[in-house]
Amino acid sequence: MTIKAVVFDAYGTLYDVQSVADVTEQSFPGYGDLITQVWRMKQLEYSWLRSLMERYEDFAVVTRASLVFTLRCLDLPQDPAVIARLMERYLRLDPYPDARTTLEALGGYQRAILSNGSPSMLRALVSASGLGQLLDATISVDARKAFKPSPQAYTLIERVLGTPPQEVLFVSSNPFDVAGAKSFGLEVAWIERIKPDTLARNLVARDRLAPLTMFQILRTQLDELGFTPDHRIGSLSELPAIAGR
Amino acid sequence: MTIKAVVFDAYGTLYDVQSVADVTEQSFPGYGDLITQVWRMKQLEYSWLRSLMERYEDFAVVTRASLVFTLRCLDLPQDPAVIARLMERYLRLDPYPDARTTLEALGGYQRAILSNGSPSMLRALVSASGLGQLLDATISVDARKAFKPSPQAYTLIERVLGTPPQEVLFVSSNPFDVAGAKSFGLEVAWIERIKPDTLARNLVARDRLAPLTMFQILRTQLDELGFTPDHRIGSLSELPAIAGR
Repeated sequence: MTIKAVVFDAYGTLYDVQSVADVTEQSFPGYGDLITQVWRMKQLEYSWLRSLMERYEDFAVVTRASLVFTLRCLDLPQDPAVIARLMERYLRLDPYPDARTTLEALGGYQRAILSNGSPSMLRALVSASGLGQLLDATISVDARKAFKPSPQAYTLIERVLGTPPQEVLFVSSNPFDVAGAKSFGLEVAWIERIKPDTLARNLVARDRLAPLTMFQILRTQLDELGFTPDHRIGSLSELPAIAGR
Repeated sequence: MTIKAVVFDAYGTLYDVQSVADVTEQSFPGYGDLITQVWRMKQLEYSWLRSLMERYEDFAVVTRASLVFTLRCLDLPQDPAVIARLMERYLRLDPYPDARTTLEALGGYQRAILSNGSPSMLRALVSASGLGQLLDATISVDARKAFKPSPQAYTLIERVLGTPPQEVLFVSSNPFDVAGAKSFGLEVAWIERIKPDTLARNLVARDRLAPLTMFQILRTQLDELGFTPDHRIGSLSELPAIAGR
């Protein structure tokens, strides 16, 4: 089937969620990486749990709640001004270096984002990074009140772009998103943002782990959910060749 | 409202999921704790993700898949005989020391388990621990093909016991389960199996964490999901007084 649209996950795929680590480290010296990892892990958990509980709240609420949880558990102060600063950083995450050039190279296709982010978070993110004019649509799951990997979320691609699932190449670094998109019926490319050898290198001792390593184990390796990606890539720059096959 | 039934979560509440650590350590010396924690974390994640993806498989499938994931990510061999031995250990988890005496003291109430476990896992667990004759029912969410914290799972209490939600005291150590049960409308007691001071004591260094500490941060502290328990207890033995109020 011919690919007509290339649709990207935002957080972790086009945008580096680890880029908040500078502000978390400034705000809480020595805790930057740890806060960044726990925050992200609980953010995803809360999106899944709220979906399951049938208590949807948008991703801004979930992102703030997971940050509050993280600070509370680490016994760090919950200063509203500091929380506001960290939340603001989430609105202007750094795009990965290969994001802009790949979107440019995919000019012959429909190009879109499908993200768990709320409409206002995504608007800010796309605007701050200047990627807006390279995208035909920025789609938030909020229109369905269902977070990925719910199939409801992926239905929005056809609804917004008018392109059926079999003509969509979906790109994500997040293993849960890869499984969800594949289960839904999209063609899926998994971008391996952290390589297994990095993981092994960080597993320096058996009984103690760097927080990043724990994060790597839990969130960056392909899951055992019964679905595997059609393509595994190391850089977004491989996408034009895949889409053109 | 008068409490007529006391319903317990199984894994982490009546039964100690950490008790598999002896077999994981024997099978993979030096990795016992780490495997135990990652295995449990991914087991829960997979239950949530499969529910969201509308790809339910029972908890035995999920438990095995999360173990396979764990061994793969830690670059450990996936010997079928070893996997079978670890899975078998999950069928005879140690009950917490306060489980039996509390169930005995609650003889005047309906007593039940509501668990994500599959019917056969729960049958084996209850039988191995000898708690069966102290329980009126062992309820698996499998009858609804929906894992906790889906409200569908909690509807099974009334269906099996005939007792409406407002007459049920639900007991869990798992923060996601506490939030789900409360959101559904049960009276909820949270048993704090790991105290915050233990957590703080284990946070010995800022940049490196014991795996147990990461687990403690992510899985044992009350979540920011908009629901809080009616009761916080340190031991199951506090339950008869709470139920009798």
